[in-house]
Amino acid sequence: MNYHVYHRRIAFHETDMMGVVHHSNHIKFYEEARVDWMRAVNLIDVHIPRGKLVLAVTETKSRYLRTLRFEDEIEVRVQAKMEGARVFFQYAVFNKITGEKAAEGMTELVPLDEALKPTRLPVAARAVFQAQPWTPEGL
Amino acid sequence: MNYHVYHRRIAFHETDMMGVVHHSNHIKFYEEARVDWMRAVNLIDVHIPRGKLVLAVTETKSRYLRTLRFEDEIEVRVQAKMEGARVFFQYAVFNKITGEKAAEGMTELVPLDEALKPTRLPVAARAVFQAQPWTPEGL
Amino acid sequence: MNYHVYHRRIAFHETDMMGVVHHSNHIKFYEEARVDWMRAVNLIDVHIPRGKLVLAVTETKSRYLRTLRFEDEIEVRVQAKMEGARVFFQYAVFNKITGEKAAEGMTELVPLDEALKPTRLPVAARAVFQAQPWTPEGL
Amino acid sequence: MNYHVYHRRIAFHETDMMGVVHHSNHIKFYEEARVDWMRAVNLIDVHIPRGKLVLAVTETKSRYLRTLRFEDEIEVRVQAKMEGARVFFQYAVFNKITGEKAAEGMTELVPLDEALKPTRLPVAARAVFQAQPWTPEGL
Repeated sequence: MNYHVYHRRIAFHETDMMGVVHHSNHIKFYEEARVDWMRAVNLIDVHIPRGKLVLAVTETKSRYLRTLRFEDEIEVRVQAKMEGARVFFQYAVFNKITGEKAAEGMTELVPLDEALKPTRLPVAARAVFQAQPWTPEGL
Repeated sequence: MNYHVYHRRIAFHETDMMGVVHHSNHIKFYEEARVDWMRAVNLIDVHIPRGKLVLAVTETKSRYLRTLRFEDEIEVRVQAKMEGARVFFQYAVFNKITGEKAAEGMTELVPLDEALKPTRLPVAARAVFQAQPWTPEGL
Repeated sequence: MNYHVYHRRIAFHETDMMGVVHHSNHIKFYEEARVDWMRAVNLIDVHIPRGKLVLAVTETKSRYLRTLRFEDEIEVRVQAKMEGARVFFQYAVFNKITGEKAAEGMTELVPLDEALKPTRLPVAARAVFQAQPWTPEGL
Repeated sequence: MNYHVYHRRIAFHETDMMGVVHHSNHIKFYEEARVDWMRAVNLIDVHIPRGKLVLAVTETKSRYLRTLRFEDEIEVRVQAKMEGARVFFQYAVFNKITGEKAAEGMTELVPLDEALKPTRLPVAARAVFQAQPWTPEGL
C-alpha cells in the first residue's frame, strides 16, 4: 500500500438539505487526512503550534463523484510530494461499505514562518517528503 | 427600539439533512450579531486584531422555537450588559417574513488579554456597556 | 463507568484566530457524542435516514472552562435521560493529556416524524433511555 | 460591469489559528455568491426548496492569493455559463479596502431532480445562463 489512510465517519452536522455531505466539508476531510499523515511521518512537530512554521494552502481542487451521507464510513487515501519550495497532496475518498470512490482532490501548500512569510522546510522534513511514493494517475 | 438589529439570510451550507438550519449555526449568528453591535457602538477597536483584548465566550445557551430554512431572511435582536468583569449578551432571532421568533439565546463572555489571561475592559468600553438597555424578560 | 465515552481529536479547521477551538464547535462535539451513544445502544436505526424519526434539538447549553487547541485529544462523556416526550443529554469534555475538564453541556431534544411534527419514541427506544444512568451533579 | 457582485464581511468564526480565514470558507463564499446571482437573475425558484431541482457541485477549484482576516470586507465577483447539461461559475474575491485580489475559484455543477438523478434545466433557465457574459481570462 503506497498511500496513507485516514478513517472517518460522516457526522450529521456535515450534511445539507439535499441529505448528503455538503461539498465544502471535503476540503476539511482533506486537511484532516493531511494532518493525520504528518502525524504518522513525524512531521507534526514542524507545524505551528508545535513548530515554527505552517503549511499554507495556496490551491485546492476537489472532484465529487458520488454522494456521501450521514453515518457513512469513509477512507481517505493521501499521498504527498515536494516540488521546489511547494508541497502537494492528492487524495481519494472511498465509501468503505460500497467500496466506491466518492471524491478525489488535490492541495498545494507553501511553508510560511510565524510572520506568514515564505520559508523553506527543514532538511529533515524535506527528506520525508522526498521519500514518499506518488501515483501520477491518482489514488 | 431598545435593542440592536443584525440582518442575515440563511445560506444553503447552513442547512442539514432535515432541510432546516443546523442548530450549531445559531451560535455563529449570535457571534455575528454581537460583533455587529460592537462595530455599531465603536467597540470593535478594543478587540483583537484591532485592539489588545478579546472577549472570550464562557457560556452559551440557545433555545430553538421554530425551524429556519434556506433563503429565510432573519433579524437577530441583541442587547448587552456588564456585571463585574463579565459581559452578557441576549439575542432573539426572528423570521422576517413570518414575523415569528425562531430562537433565543444568551452568551457570557470575559475579557482576556493577548496571552488569554483575564483582564478588565478599558473605562470607555465599560461606559458603553453600562449605557445599554436590557430587557430582563428577553427580546 | 456510568457514562458513554466518545473520543475525538481537535482539527486545525476547528481553531479560530485566538489559537483555540471556536466555541461553536463544542455543539458539534456534543452532537457527535450523542450519535456515538445512539450507535452504541442500537438506537441509530430509529433515526433518519435509517428510521422514520429525528431527534430535533430544542435547547443547548455549553459552559467553557478551559481552552482546547489543535491536536488536543478529547474525551466526551455523555449521559441520556427521558422526561415525558423529551430527551436530555449531558456532556463533559476532558482534555485527555492534562485530565482537565474543558467544557460541559446539555441538550434537550424532542422526537419528530418525517414531516417534522412531534411524535413519540418507539417503546423499545423508550426502554433504552429509561435504563440509562444519570448523574444529577454532572459528569 | 460584466459580472455579478456579492458583498460580504469576514466573521470571527471563519478565522483559524493562523489569524486568517480558513481556506474551506472560500468554498462557502463561492456558494453564497452563486446563490446571490441566482436570486438576482430570478433563478432561485428553480432550486429546491422553491423549485424541483438542485444544482449539485461536481467540481470545485480555488486559488488563494492573499490572506483575508476578521472584519475584512470582501467583494465576490461571479460569472456563470452553460456547456451542455453542465453549468460553470467562476469567482474572484477582492479585499474591498486594499483592492487586492485575495482568491479566485471555479465550480462545475449539474442539475439534479429531487431523487438526485441528472436532469436538464428548464428552457427559461437555460436562456438565462446563455445570456451571461463570461471572461475567459478570469475575473
